[in-house]
Amino acid sequence: MTKPPASPRTHTHAALAPRPLPPLLLLSLLPIASWFVLRPFLDPFPPLPGLYTSFGFSLFAFASVVYLVPKAGPSFVKAGLWGRDLLKVYGDPVPESQGLICASVYILTLILFIPFAFSDAFSSHFNSKSKSEPEGLSVNEFPLYQLSVYLSSILSIIIAAILGFLDDVFDIRWRHKLPIPVVASIPLLMVYFAEGGNTNVVVPIPFRGMLGLGALVNLGPLYYIYMSLLSTFTTNSINILAGINGSEVSQALIIALSVILNDLLYLPWPVDFSIPVHLLGSQREVEIGGVWSAGMAYGSREMVERHLFSLYFMMPLVGVCAGFGYHNWYPARAFPGDTLCYFAGMAFAVVGIQAHYSKTLLLFFMPQIFNFVLSCPQLFGLVPCPRHRVPRFSPETNLLYPSRAKLESKDGKPRPPSGLAALILRTFSVLGFVELTFGHDGEITETTNLTILNVLLVRFGPMREDRLVKVVVAVQIVGSVIAFLVRYGLASLVYDGDRR
Amino acid sequence: MTKPPASPRTHTHAALAPRPLPPLLLLSLLPIASWFVLRPFLDPFPPLPGLYTSFGFSLFAFASVVYLVPKAGPSFVKAGLWGRDLLKVYGDPVPESQGLICASVYILTLILFIPFAFSDAFSSHFNSKSKSEPEGLSVNEFPLYQLSVYLSSILSIIIAAILGFLDDVFDIRWRHKLPIPVVASIPLLMVYFAEGGNTNVVVPIPFRGMLGLGALVNLGPLYYIYMSLLSTFTTNSINILAGINGSEVSQALIIALSVILNDLLYLPWPVDFSIPVHLLGSQREVEIGGVWSAGMAYGSREMVERHLFSLYFMMPLVGVCAGFGYHNWYPARAFPGDTLCYFAGMAFAVVGIQAHYSKTLLLFFMPQIFNFVLSCPQLFGLVPCPRHRVPRFSPETNLLYPSRAKLESKDGKPRPPSGLAALILRTFSVLGFVELTFGHDGEITETTNLTILNVLLVRFGPMREDRLVKVVVAVQIVGSVIAFLVRYGLASLVYDGDRR
Repeated sequence: MTKPPASPRTHTHAALAPRPLPPLLLLSLLPIASWFVLRPFLDPFPPLPGLYTSFGFSLFAFASVVYLVPKAGPSFVKAGLWGRDLLKVYGDPVPESQGLICASVYILTLILFIPFAFSDAFSSHFNSKSKSEPEGLSVNEFPLYQLSVYLSSILSIIIAAILGFLDDVFDIRWRHKLPIPVVASIPLLMVYFAEGGNTNVVVPIPFRGMLGLGALVNLGPLYYIYMSLLSTFTTNSINILAGINGSEVSQALIIALSVILNDLLYLPWPVDFSIPVHLLGSQREVEIGGVWSAGMAYGSREMVERHLFSLYFMMPLVGVCAGFGYHNWYPARAFPGDTLCYFAGMAFAVVGIQAHYSKTLLLFFMPQIFNFVLSCPQLFGLVPCPRHRVPRFSPETNLLYPSRAKLESKDGKPRPPSGLAALILRTFSVLGFVELTFGHDGEITETTNLTILNVLLVRFGPMREDRLVKVVVAVQIVGSVIAFLVRYGLASLVYDGDRR
Repeated sequence: MTKPPASPRTHTHAALAPRPLPPLLLLSLLPIASWFVLRPFLDPFPPLPGLYTSFGFSLFAFASVVYLVPKAGPSFVKAGLWGRDLLKVYGDPVPESQGLICASVYILTLILFIPFAFSDAFSSHFNSKSKSEPEGLSVNEFPLYQLSVYLSSILSIIIAAILGFLDDVFDIRWRHKLPIPVVASIPLLMVYFAEGGNTNVVVPIPFRGMLGLGALVNLGPLYYIYMSLLSTFTTNSINILAGINGSEVSQALIIALSVILNDLLYLPWPVDFSIPVHLLGSQREVEIGGVWSAGMAYGSREMVERHLFSLYFMMPLVGVCAGFGYHNWYPARAFPGDTLCYFAGMAFAVVGIQAHYSKTLLLFFMPQIFNFVLSCPQLFGLVPCPRHRVPRFSPETNLLYPSRAKLESKDGKPRPPSGLAALILRTFSVLGFVELTFGHDGEITETTNLTILNVLLVRFGPMREDRLVKVVVAVQIVGSVIAFLVRYGLASLVYDGDRR
């Protein structure tokens, strides 16, 4: 996905004609989406009206992205926002940075949703009519003071999207890129501070005795640094697990779906339920129900509100990612650019911080954490890092092979790795993460690049690009399943019910 | 300011080397700005601490823009964001769309200001220490609920900036451009609605009897349309009064300064004062003082808060516009692009709406209103409208002359104007707004273009570009003086004290 300076060929490869739209699907979606948006106004009034509207808006967002991406493609190419697909036999221009369309639709959806979630006008309308609802199922979930939290979240996401797009346009250098998410998190931090946000964290049980701490410790300013770092991580970690068609957008999609599943556990449902944590080895007493008969919320209205807040951000994100995935799937007709990774990563950071489940969120990022840790020797210069670390494409076999980094100095002379680097590479080799090449003297001369994509190719052998992205999707799903097991099985060993 | 597709020459004309920075000025500004930012923490605590901080931030914003614009110039040219100056003898590339830098600095300033204006932490600190202040001079001017209004205003401005930049990158067509400010005003409208904003307007006294209305009339949904139209007007009207070096930025600067002057009239001052409106022919009884001894606020705390809100947006705007003007002044080293007009226009609309003085605001836009009304025959197709209507530059004399539109059909055949068009053109000619050319048969064959710039050239004769922009500045200043006379002299004839 390099961007050569010359103008693209106008000739278009047949394989790259825009993917045809599914008109029946799109047209049938519109009435369904409209019904969900308007559901809160229909008798009988539902207990969580905002949820219906948000779901309806998410369907609209999906349809808009599916429709707009191919429509806007030529304008992107004309404006110089295009690239060639490095892992294909053809060299046709593919529109780049189209994550901008996702970001625009996403942000507009969030803004249009404001009156539904926060309006006094709507909520009093519901309240007066839903007196017959069961006690506790209040409809006015969002008091007005939460509006500024919602707005600051949108501001952070919009800034991340702009900075991602500017990165695409101006091609910002790597070291200038890193602080971008910190800048984007400023509105979040400012409003958190202005509202006197909670900077306490729960101390894991084993540490309490050890360090002589109480159940809660006030991190103060450190909490703000933690929030900035969280957004830096969620943003960049998706961005570095990129390079093959559909990889960025499917990561974002699966993480968002995992977050949604987790949120749903905390909502009030018509039936009482709770996860049978005792089957997972937890000794914790399982309370069910309460005024809010919400699964894991254990009667806490605040918990329900936080997870609703999270759903309002995650459902439209799933909508735009799914819509974009339709065109970004192998062989890609559109590239996301950094814009998509930035705004989606920021959206995850926002919900993790505002809904206070950042540790659970990080569990859903396990493949990204693995990829980041694996990359560190190359990111920090222990092992040479070529310009591109995407797998190598062979036009003859149409397969992807692990790409390699030569252990040589900048002038092309062989340079054996330092003791530490050799130790790391040999350990990775034993674990099956890399394939090493050795010289006559037994020194390492080459290694496969340290990314999860290359690890998968080393472990499972060369494969086609579309198969590799499916393996990545599978890894992400397995990661989420493990995350749920850890969160609801093991976490109770080190944390009690006091979650903040 | 056309953008040819080829790469620019790398050779740079001597006249176009970046304007040297005034290092002494910038360096001496930093301690002054820091003092103002930190002033609220110094004993004795000032009555309006946010105002000091905002002023300090505005100085920082000025210095940042002065410093960043030339620094970022080469990146803009490299990214294809450049144009040639049509009114010069040289054809060197000038960085275009650098209003983006102003927008970024402006928005970051507004965001960093949040804790100073809205934080409980700060205000309780002040409140506990300033018990000795005179009664009424409360320090916690902004209750937390106003934070969401502030945030929605930033959102609208940021969206306007993005859309302006996208317009620069994608070269959006004229008819697609018009709704842009409407999209940008959505966050404003949504939050206004969610907060149950006031949709009443005061009816002018003469109409009350005539139409049988009370002093207030509730416009309801019409009020939202009015707000959208206001932002459409403030945004586009600056954009169409463009084309010569420094014209956009100096309009924005003078309007912002006029708004600030107006705001200052409503703040509490150490001395009691009020404008001697009786000298201007007003019969209204002049109340002075009150608990808030604020000139024109007549003791209304709400009025003081509104105008503080306005100042918090206008002072940084003056900062970034002045900073950009330094590089955009004749001969321009940087072009603002649509980005500047969009975000500055939106900032005016925001304060006009949120601080409830949209009618006064429109008075400061008199030259723009005149330019718009004058342009209508060309905008709506009564008179042919060439691609560019900027004055014509003659390299021989180095002067600008009025540019002309030929009254001909698209295939180049002469087409006499319709009866209405001829009437309008002849009227404009009598008023001295246009110069007409007549054919043998007495039909109009050519007219000077219908913009204020051409009117000034018709009236005052050909002049150099730097002189013309000074004339434009003078017109804008005279407009503001008249605006103040109308607002504080004549307005009381048709409105009583009940202002909303």
